[in-house]
Amino acid sequence: MTERSKTTRIGFIGSGNVATHLALAINAIGLQVEQIYSRSIANAEILANKVKAQAINSVSDFSENLDLVIISINDSSFLELDLSSINDSILICHTSGALEMNTLAKHENYGVFYPLQTFSKTSLPNISEVPFCLEANTNDNLEKLKNLAILLSNNINEIDSEQRKALHLAAVFVCNFTNAMYNIGDEIIAKSDLSFDLLRPLIEETANKIKTLKPIDAQTGPAIRNNTEIMNEHINLLKESPDYINIYKEISKIIFKKTK
Amino acid sequence: MTERSKTTRIGFIGSGNVATHLALAINAIGLQVEQIYSRSIANAEILANKVKAQAINSVSDFSENLDLVIISINDSSFLELDLSSINDSILICHTSGALEMNTLAKHENYGVFYPLQTFSKTSLPNISEVPFCLEANTNDNLEKLKNLAILLSNNINEIDSEQRKALHLAAVFVCNFTNAMYNIGDEIIAKSDLSFDLLRPLIEETANKIKTLKPIDAQTGPAIRNNTEIMNEHINLLKESPDYINIYKEISKIIFKKTK
Repeated sequence: MTERSKTTRIGFIGSGNVATHLALAINAIGLQVEQIYSRSIANAEILANKVKAQAINSVSDFSENLDLVIISINDSSFLELDLSSINDSILICHTSGALEMNTLAKHENYGVFYPLQTFSKTSLPNISEVPFCLEANTNDNLEKLKNLAILLSNNINEIDSEQRKALHLAAVFVCNFTNAMYNIGDEIIAKSDLSFDLLRPLIEETANKIKTLKPIDAQTGPAIRNNTEIMNEHINLLKESPDYINIYKEISKIIFKKTK
Repeated sequence: MTERSKTTRIGFIGSGNVATHLALAINAIGLQVEQIYSRSIANAEILANKVKAQAINSVSDFSENLDLVIISINDSSFLELDLSSINDSILICHTSGALEMNTLAKHENYGVFYPLQTFSKTSLPNISEVPFCLEANTNDNLEKLKNLAILLSNNINEIDSEQRKALHLAAVFVCNFTNAMYNIGDEIIAKSDLSFDLLRPLIEETANKIKTLKPIDAQTGPAIRNNTEIMNEHINLLKESPDYINIYKEISKIIFKKTK
């Protein structure tokens, strides 16, 4: 039995966006997702049908022949999970950016298999470019996770729990908060009867620029020049949205500090 | 003489990123940029060489045979410009998102030719997808601007000065402030000895998602679920950067309000 084949029998806990994208990607490279547990058996069955796996009712139904169980559920549900019935020989990993690896330390073989990407129902990111951030309690277990990850992606990284926390925090800024900026932009122009389509090329190019530039070198806008005339006019336009005025001032202040 | 040929003799005021990209794009479609004025004759010459135009020392050197003068300079320099020597028959437009069209009202023929995009030295956005936002003091002048814009882009919009102000403000959020989020992400992970490359696929996909989704429907992250445990941990990680804690809390509050 080769090293690689040791990680071919895979179970999943969870059936949300991350679990679904990972299970489909694993299925697509010809590996077998054997069993799927989810709090809702109906949701487990939906995903199980997609990857020809078995939906199970309880964590204790996981076969002892599995090599790997991947846990992809939200962090609070994770902390309530009872994994004690899972066979000690099975490598258990979670996919969370925020949870320490040691949340699995009761187990004999454990690790982290964190895909640093935003997964949604409607958009399928190119899995081969997703950075997989791996950590495990032994070198042997790390190898097993690597052997799976390199089949999925060209972007494999050993990342410890402290680093992963920083990554997860940074991801909140560059993904969640960036999307919040998009949404504020949409709200502002909707009030002037303009379509969000007008902003889409700008959003695309803003993301495009930092494929080659560092963000500090890509910064533009009135704040960089401390152009108070334009900034005051913007603040005046936001007068019905005190929350947005606050954000406008705070981010402008940071841009000016960082680029002066 | 056809309607279109009326706008073929073009002068520029300015030689920065917007002027350069526009002049190159106009040159690329086979129209002639005749003259370029810039406060610095050296900069005017650099651009003039690229598009085989004449660099001029003064606004009063503009030929009276021009059809159109495009002003692409920063807004404060614009307000200091003396355009009185330019022949009344020439259509004069600026490319600013923030300035009202009426800043040109002393002239007989005037308008706005605003490309809603971020232009930098290193990145060349696809000009054919750039939304051009046009406004003019007469229908005839609007037609002239449209006739030029449709040669450059498939995305032509009539936008009045009030709408353009909203667009410009929205652009600050979706471009400048988004880039500030990228930069904060970069800073956070640099402290953990991690490369910005790790965040690039996430940034790309975050922008990608809103090609089809509205931002409100693409929102993810701990704030949407009001996951105070993770948010408190993030705030703790930011303890050396009070500015970032402030921003973290403010944007999280807005995300929660908008999506609950």
